[in-house]
Amino acid sequence: MPFTAPASTGPIGVFDSGIGGLTVVAALRELLPAEDIFYLGDTARVPYGGKGRQTIERYTLEIAELLLAEGAKAIVVACNTATALAIPKLQEIVPVPSVGVIMPGAAAAAAVTRNGRVGVIGTRATIASGAYERALRDCRPDLEVHVLACPLLVPLVEEGWLDDPVTDQVVGRYLTPLLAAGIDTLVLGCTHYPFVRESIARFLGPGITIVDSARNCALATREMLSANDLAAPADQRGSLQVALTDPSGAFLEVAERQLGLGIRDVLVRRVVAANKTEEPRISPE
Amino acid sequence: MPFTAPASTGPIGVFDSGIGGLTVVAALRELLPAEDIFYLGDTARVPYGGKGRQTIERYTLEIAELLLAEGAKAIVVACNTATALAIPKLQEIVPVPSVGVIMPGAAAAAAVTRNGRVGVIGTRATIASGAYERALRDCRPDLEVHVLACPLLVPLVEEGWLDDPVTDQVVGRYLTPLLAAGIDTLVLGCTHYPFVRESIARFLGPGITIVDSARNCALATREMLSANDLAAPADQRGSLQVALTDPSGAFLEVAERQLGLGIRDVLVRRVVAANKTEEPRISPE
Repeated sequence: MPFTAPASTGPIGVFDSGIGGLTVVAALRELLPAEDIFYLGDTARVPYGGKGRQTIERYTLEIAELLLAEGAKAIVVACNTATALAIPKLQEIVPVPSVGVIMPGAAAAAAVTRNGRVGVIGTRATIASGAYERALRDCRPDLEVHVLACPLLVPLVEEGWLDDPVTDQVVGRYLTPLLAAGIDTLVLGCTHYPFVRESIARFLGPGITIVDSARNCALATREMLSANDLAAPADQRGSLQVALTDPSGAFLEVAERQLGLGIRDVLVRRVVAANKTEEPRISPE
Repeated sequence: MPFTAPASTGPIGVFDSGIGGLTVVAALRELLPAEDIFYLGDTARVPYGGKGRQTIERYTLEIAELLLAEGAKAIVVACNTATALAIPKLQEIVPVPSVGVIMPGAAAAAAVTRNGRVGVIGTRATIASGAYERALRDCRPDLEVHVLACPLLVPLVEEGWLDDPVTDQVVGRYLTPLLAAGIDTLVLGCTHYPFVRESIARFLGPGITIVDSARNCALATREMLSANDLAAPADQRGSLQVALTDPSGAFLEVAERQLGLGIRDVLVRRVVAANKTEEPRISPE
């Protein structure tokens, strides 16, 4: 057996609040076929999109610990909400390199817009975090950024109403203000949204470019591995292991069929919460 | 100060996966104004409706422990999914009496139907559990029961699209088969659904009775307290304390306004998971 540096033999640990991050896995498999991937979908606590920073940071660190226990050599946060709220904390604490979905998508959008007006759609938590505005303005300070939370799109995707008049109506309701704002580029700031890309494209028409963060995240992952000398040997055929924190969810089947991933067994893992603490009183806003 | 038996001085511990259980709280406040109520909404892990039995049992026991630590003299499971999947385990383990939302709603429906054809709508997990069929047939073995999962109704309610053409369309899509089956009674088997009761009633028309489990659960709670000699002194004015496991969620405001509850401070509590165990491999179905 040829010698391989231990650091580059582990899998890429990829996680999402649920199943949506498999869109990133599909892009990684295509771009980096030699890499082993260990995917964790936190289906016992899905969705993250309506929850707060403290909760999402805690979930992210708990999952990172699980991925490190699987020998992950690097971590891909395939969840926009976790990227928006918890990447700084993750990079501060976890000893392997990591990449999220926001900066790669923002960079692609900044490169592609002609009129400088970029729209971003995502969950409530992602949008409220301001992470996309910051990332886009880091790329190009002159951009005019229009952000919008679309909380119903994830449940519509998970219901499997992918090509459906109700979904078209909801998409139209949400996107009308972005169209009115004259954007020429729209970032899909949630890993579920590529499943309703057709509906979004139909509503926006051919003049608006849709940027899907999955492929851009895979490209950023390739760079990160290469920069840290962590790439798997090119002649290796990478494996894919999927684990969920709750085994239910009809959506896994939908996603697997749509993405053409070869998932065999699914592991069930429990994520452990940190010690009990009582947090300060807050008032409802 | 008059002597009061310690057992009857604690609050009623009420919990739900999120905010929907406040419909039960509103009914309890109206029917049992002397009772203190401690409500826990598990907003850090909401929704429960798409998750499996093991996960829901674990969440329910973790929350029961928290409620007991608050001195709860009885537990009201104001969540259909937790009632459907975890009430037996709860009643086996927890040392105070408890009541759920399913049997009270089922009993009311069995009493009210004229043609013996009853419909039930709920989350995926509630419907898949078969709990409503069992409860209805326990009441009246001759009933013809038609159950249906409506996963989009909770997110539509939480988005605040309560009186909305999209909601009407989704309601119509879901309920058409129940109408065709000739039901004369529909059980709202999810504590969120009373918020879209108008839309449901409009679609079903005046010939179909809608049974809302909140008020029936409050009636069952009164009986349980009385049977266990746990009722608060009638001259007391009960308090309401609301705690959430994640403080975000615009829906709390919507719910409070709709229900007219006087919620002041909201506590934030962390629920602690039991020890780490790795569970057996499963294959995706």
